[in-house]
Amino acid sequence: MSRYKLTVEYDGTPFVGWQRQENGPSVQAALEAAIEAFCGETVRVQGAGRTDAGVHAIGQVAHLDLARERDPFRISEALNHHLKPAPVAVLAVETVADDFDARRSATARHYEYRILNRRAPPAIERDRVWHVTAPLDADAMHEAARPALGKHDFTTFRAAQCQAKSPVRTLDRLDVARHGDTLVVNAAARSFLHSQVRSLVGSLKLVGEGKWRPQDFRAALRAADRAACGPLAPPCGLYLVRVDY
Amino acid sequence: MSRYKLTVEYDGTPFVGWQRQENGPSVQAALEAAIEAFCGETVRVQGAGRTDAGVHAIGQVAHLDLARERDPFRISEALNHHLKPAPVAVLAVETVADDFDARRSATARHYEYRILNRRAPPAIERDRVWHVTAPLDADAMHEAARPALGKHDFTTFRAAQCQAKSPVRTLDRLDVARHGDTLVVNAAARSFLHSQVRSLVGSLKLVGEGKWRPQDFRAALRAADRAACGPLAPPCGLYLVRVDY
Repeated sequence: MSRYKLTVEYDGTPFVGWQRQENGPSVQAALEAAIEAFCGETVRVQGAGRTDAGVHAIGQVAHLDLARERDPFRISEALNHHLKPAPVAVLAVETVADDFDARRSATARHYEYRILNRRAPPAIERDRVWHVTAPLDADAMHEAARPALGKHDFTTFRAAQCQAKSPVRTLDRLDVARHGDTLVVNAAARSFLHSQVRSLVGSLKLVGEGKWRPQDFRAALRAADRAACGPLAPPCGLYLVRVDY
Repeated sequence: MSRYKLTVEYDGTPFVGWQRQENGPSVQAALEAAIEAFCGETVRVQGAGRTDAGVHAIGQVAHLDLARERDPFRISEALNHHLKPAPVAVLAVETVADDFDARRSATARHYEYRILNRRAPPAIERDRVWHVTAPLDADAMHEAARPALGKHDFTTFRAAQCQAKSPVRTLDRLDVARHGDTLVVNAAARSFLHSQVRSLVGSLKLVGEGKWRPQDFRAALRAADRAACGPLAPPCGLYLVRVDY
């Protein structure tokens, strides 16, 4: 048996999410079908993060085991061939030690959230950004986010269906910057709660449009109460950028 | 009568091109239909550049006349409403003098061509880039392009169906730069011949992969012969970025 690490890019729009589900196509199932088409082996692909329906990845990481040892480059070429026309691309395949686990071995996950902040809807970037028409103050959002850095009970910013045992997480990065009409939020942590980034961004957006003061964001965090969260930001603006090991 | 200048963004993928044609949906027809839906006037929208099928724009410019004077902001909001679900967005509307002509008054057109240069196909950027798997030397492409700057007979880099009277154009910019896996070619001129940017990029790509030496590119230009051109770069990588007046 040989274990392989895959780096994967996908457009989340047509998928029910990373994880295999009964109700529609998943990225995980697309990869597993491509592996079976390539070498006949029925395997389970384990991802570093379970992105929701509509969430994209430019650097998701997964691992899988094959009974026969194969050339990593040949695996990536074959998977990309068999994945067509699904919008999933295998960027890299590496042989890894048998104890490498895409989810458990990860030391950091990096997400990016993109907001298109203008009156006109996105034509080129449709399904790739959150379109917000109200003018957003990126500096105010960045400053308001400072108190969320570090170790906190993130119950406020956690989906009701989150299965994590503890709501405590350590947030290493939560930066907001404007590039022309686009606001980019960068978030990094060892691990995130379910919908944590979208919950944080949805609340920071209220600060950006002046509906919340920065202290309202801090109070929401301290409340440790899901009811204190702003409306969830939509999935289409979120990208899993990188996973560190 | 009042004349208006429109700045328009579109995803060229589902269109036969900017220009109204019998054989399918065009950006021009989509805009004209939106104007009629908004105010009942049947008008002709004149664009600065006739982008081909599959070519995108983030700053196409067009003008149109309305019998009644209307608030420019209201026009843009109404057009964006009526354009849905077509991937066309009106970024700005301004009132202009009656002699403003989107095509004839333009002093410069700026195009960008994006190449994704990696083994894996694009998942997020599908239909938005030219996927080239052979490693490209961006510096060699940039250097090879220098002789094309200035005033030349561009017959080599002109589509057979080009309707311009003269093949002579003055190229003000043709830069090639690498940003990670992406190569960006920036081109600017007062006006371009039909398929000129895609012809130049298709030939520079041969230099980038080492099939042409830089002097082969210069010789192709000097030949002033369409047969000397490399294979045309596909439309999906091309963006009309800006038009100056």
